[in-house]
Amino acid sequence: MRVQVIVSYNGTNYAGWQIQPAVLSVQQILQDALVTMHRHPILIVGSGRTDAGVHALGQSFHFDTDMNLSTDVWERALNSQLPDDIVVRKVKEVPQAFHARFSAISKRYDYLVNVGEYDPLHYNLEYQLNRNLDLDAMRQGAQILIGTHDFSSFCANTFEEIPNQIRTVSHLEILEENGCIRFTLEGSGFLRYMVRMLVGNLIDVGLHRKSLEDLQVIMDKHDKTATSSIAPACGLYLVRVDYPEAL
Amino acid sequence: MRVQVIVSYNGTNYAGWQIQPAVLSVQQILQDALVTMHRHPILIVGSGRTDAGVHALGQSFHFDTDMNLSTDVWERALNSQLPDDIVVRKVKEVPQAFHARFSAISKRYDYLVNVGEYDPLHYNLEYQLNRNLDLDAMRQGAQILIGTHDFSSFCANTFEEIPNQIRTVSHLEILEENGCIRFTLEGSGFLRYMVRMLVGNLIDVGLHRKSLEDLQVIMDKHDKTATSSIAPACGLYLVRVDYPEAL
Repeated sequence: MRVQVIVSYNGTNYAGWQIQPAVLSVQQILQDALVTMHRHPILIVGSGRTDAGVHALGQSFHFDTDMNLSTDVWERALNSQLPDDIVVRKVKEVPQAFHARFSAISKRYDYLVNVGEYDPLHYNLEYQLNRNLDLDAMRQGAQILIGTHDFSSFCANTFEEIPNQIRTVSHLEILEENGCIRFTLEGSGFLRYMVRMLVGNLIDVGLHRKSLEDLQVIMDKHDKTATSSIAPACGLYLVRVDYPEAL
Repeated sequence: MRVQVIVSYNGTNYAGWQIQPAVLSVQQILQDALVTMHRHPILIVGSGRTDAGVHALGQSFHFDTDMNLSTDVWERALNSQLPDDIVVRKVKEVPQAFHARFSAISKRYDYLVNVGEYDPLHYNLEYQLNRNLDLDAMRQGAQILIGTHDFSSFCANTFEEIPNQIRTVSHLEILEENGCIRFTLEGSGFLRYMVRMLVGNLIDVGLHRKSLEDLQVIMDKHDKTATSSIAPACGLYLVRVDYPEAL
């Protein structure tokens, strides 16, 4: 039986989603909880990695199991073993054809920037920019980024790793709420550091460090050295992963 | 010259305000920053302790210095040395008669309870009760607590430490905002654990675990064993310390 799990976590205390030697990852914590239940190795497959310090409201992963539990019991059994900063939101039985990574058709990320006074309570939950941003300029910049483009200037993946770096950003909205700017991005797939680099460059536009023309030039260069602007991990949230209805 | 400082901090990573051996305290961090500037020992005096995990929006402390800096320079010099979870809000030159603890005439504390879905992002910023509270019952309970009373049932101080445990709660308001309950307490002085024990007992009333009569009986007992209800530290915020205008 294949099971899909939706999980929320505060990424502050983790070296990211992905299991790595000698550091604590969210995947490790979740896998350990499942191994405790199964008493044999279990491998979980996430929709994708999140970097160290990045948060998730709705990360998605799957695993295969021979345990026949109701979704309620799965939820309680997992949550009873998880630390305070990780919580399982939903457990769902899915067809064997479901794959948390390869079946995903779209992802939504939010990015939070505090443009008000420095907030030590949220030092790890928002980018503490603490400066005004020109919303109009950033919204015009967003229009350059929305759509299907070669985003190779805005990611860390080499062309050897990923030869085709064309992706579609279907949605990029910028809202102000109580002294905080929220960037909402949706797309069919994001490359490594892509969201943080898009937001970092939009912030440059919002601070008038870059013009709209500069942004267009960076995009058109298809060059890994075209920009080094990257917004800090702590402001980034993986909000949702979408799959085809049939799965 | 005597200097007063207003400081905000996220208490998650600290063993409280007060310097203690072998653990990290907020006072230690601030004192170390001042020692670095002065190159000789400096003692800072806070308005009072905050427990491990308790936050502050406006903790107040004072120290004496022979350095003659403008308040702007003090602020920048201190903030440049502080970690991300502590920030100096304001530095003020005060009369020698000012004492952060003994001159304080009133304090305001807020306490946050999440009555909505469990929130791993705010696991350390709100008490994750995740159950409905009867606001009306709690507001009636608050009426029992407001005013001048012997609060000895609602604190951890022994009578040897503090013989007179009569204090005045001048204000106790309970508001709901976006799935979160905010308790606001103001008073001339609070005893050890008093805010957390008052809130803990009001939560018991809000969960219908205690009646209003139970609350009155606990208050009237003047007995350290009358209640063991204490709300967790992570929901508590020291919001403000007030001093006479002349100081």
